[in-house]
Amino acid sequence: MYSKEYVIDQILSGKSKQIQLEKGTVYAPANIALCKYWGKRNRTLNLPMTSSLSIGLAQKGSHFAFEVLDEKLDRLMLNRTVVNDQDDFYQRLFSFINLFRTSSTPRLDININSTVPIAAGLASSASGFASVVKGLNALYGWQLNDSDLSILARLGSGSACRSLWSGFVEWQMGARDDGMDSLGLPLTCIWPQLRIGLLLASSEKKSISSRDAMALTKETSGFYALWPQQVSIDLTQIKKALVEKDFSTLGQTSERNALAMHATMLTATPSILYSTPQTTAWMQHVWQLRKDNVDVYFTQDAGPNLKLLFLEKDTENILQHFAEVEIIQPF
Amino acid sequence: MYSKEYVIDQILSGKSKQIQLEKGTVYAPANIALCKYWGKRNRTLNLPMTSSLSIGLAQKGSHFAFEVLDEKLDRLMLNRTVVNDQDDFYQRLFSFINLFRTSSTPRLDININSTVPIAAGLASSASGFASVVKGLNALYGWQLNDSDLSILARLGSGSACRSLWSGFVEWQMGARDDGMDSLGLPLTCIWPQLRIGLLLASSEKKSISSRDAMALTKETSGFYALWPQQVSIDLTQIKKALVEKDFSTLGQTSERNALAMHATMLTATPSILYSTPQTTAWMQHVWQLRKDNVDVYFTQDAGPNLKLLFLEKDTENILQHFAEVEIIQPF
Repeated sequence: MYSKEYVIDQILSGKSKQIQLEKGTVYAPANIALCKYWGKRNRTLNLPMTSSLSIGLAQKGSHFAFEVLDEKLDRLMLNRTVVNDQDDFYQRLFSFINLFRTSSTPRLDININSTVPIAAGLASSASGFASVVKGLNALYGWQLNDSDLSILARLGSGSACRSLWSGFVEWQMGARDDGMDSLGLPLTCIWPQLRIGLLLASSEKKSISSRDAMALTKETSGFYALWPQQVSIDLTQIKKALVEKDFSTLGQTSERNALAMHATMLTATPSILYSTPQTTAWMQHVWQLRKDNVDVYFTQDAGPNLKLLFLEKDTENILQHFAEVEIIQPF
Repeated sequence: MYSKEYVIDQILSGKSKQIQLEKGTVYAPANIALCKYWGKRNRTLNLPMTSSLSIGLAQKGSHFAFEVLDEKLDRLMLNRTVVNDQDDFYQRLFSFINLFRTSSTPRLDININSTVPIAAGLASSASGFASVVKGLNALYGWQLNDSDLSILARLGSGSACRSLWSGFVEWQMGARDDGMDSLGLPLTCIWPQLRIGLLLASSEKKSISSRDAMALTKETSGFYALWPQQVSIDLTQIKKALVEKDFSTLGQTSERNALAMHATMLTATPSILYSTPQTTAWMQHVWQLRKDNVDVYFTQDAGPNLKLLFLEKDTENILQHFAEVEIIQPF
């Protein structure tokens, strides 16, 4: 079993361990999976059971600012609020950053401004960890390419490996035990008419993290065995739809894939249902609109929010039916 | 492929085709499956993909009154309302009854009073068709035993074969192509403390019948392949829990089985979600109560209603949390 340190050594071999930049700010977009990542084959390295595919959220993501400190302790602010060193998020972040430091590396003052709600199924940890590795790359002056940064981001949070790019990104699961072939690959397809509509049911913290939920599902769901097969079918279909600009197939397949993921959760022990009554109402509303010939689909991550998929031409219609929607233009 | 007529001939061989009773009333209880029937291996004979297990609802069911008519057309009343001969229900009922009539058999005046909401996932067709075969048995004086009546009821509606008895009934799927071994078997277990709580989200007609929903699921869901395996595990566990009077296992397994059935529907194309926002709210409420150590579980059929499972001792508590609940005492 390979360790995170082993992977980092492979990627940083010959690179500087000295800080090259006193202060900087980087940005990484959040991403929404159209074909989901659900279940790990290796929990240490966040190696997935299947490949997955996402769309970047352009201006929704994480701004990561760092500054070298002449103090004994790291400092962290999240969305302009101080995060205590006992906090889970503080510990998760710095135990990741510590993988890249020696005892003599100076402490940091870190300021993360996330434009997506934290831990509400909106991929905040994806953009967060992608921005962290971009920040470290600048701090140490490694000049790594995005593929290497994607592997490093994956060590922080699996789906972060898709947040190094905007647009469509495929996370290729890879086959190697050390995960050196498990990373994001940006797709060349551009789709300027595509729109994502965010429907936020709640920005409260989730009752179970996606990390724990996917582990529980993989261990206890009688249906999980068929998930890899479902992904394989859906991923092929989504990539074909992207090439052919076939929006109905893209929407239908993405929605089906999300529902299949939630179906594996329903059959976990204990069951996991991220939907609130609001989520159910939105789903029924989307299906009703489709019956009325509006081309709108949804996807749902490990939380109660829905993300609508539709095309520019239907914007007015969507705004009329979902007054609370926040519309993202990914291209 | 055997026909319904073939099966009926097997069972009624040597029996009278003449009416023996001018007028009569029979009753059959509705039943709630704790391990669900979902998917047919033979749609003509309603032969199931798996066995299933239910609890009868005692006083909730169908009263079937018949009277021989000296007229050209059958008459039907459902819950004191005349049903037109163009109505789906009229046609389904009389095409079933016609299987047992010759051209010279007199017409009937039929009066069904159902104490369960029709077509709202409350097994109204189960008690309905079970009461019909009991009525025909009286009308023709066949004096068939309940096992033979169970096979006949199955030809009208699959789950009707479990409604010939009160208490726990297993529908043994059988292996024969003619279905002569696919019928209900009453279990000897009695559980006087058991309570069923009906939560009716809506008594409106369903958007898709359970008959169509199970066919669509079997044909299109990527997860349906694992359903028979799930049932086999759950059925064994439920029967063991009944023998051992292990209520937690009974509740947990029944709830998991229902959620697995709904998971197969979510992954059908198009998706089927019978839950309304009210259903989702009730589920979350049940799970919250379990966290607070109240031993309550739910099951859900092809509709938005929930059926709670709990024990007599928790009645006050349940009434406090679900003001709208209707409590059934099956024993």
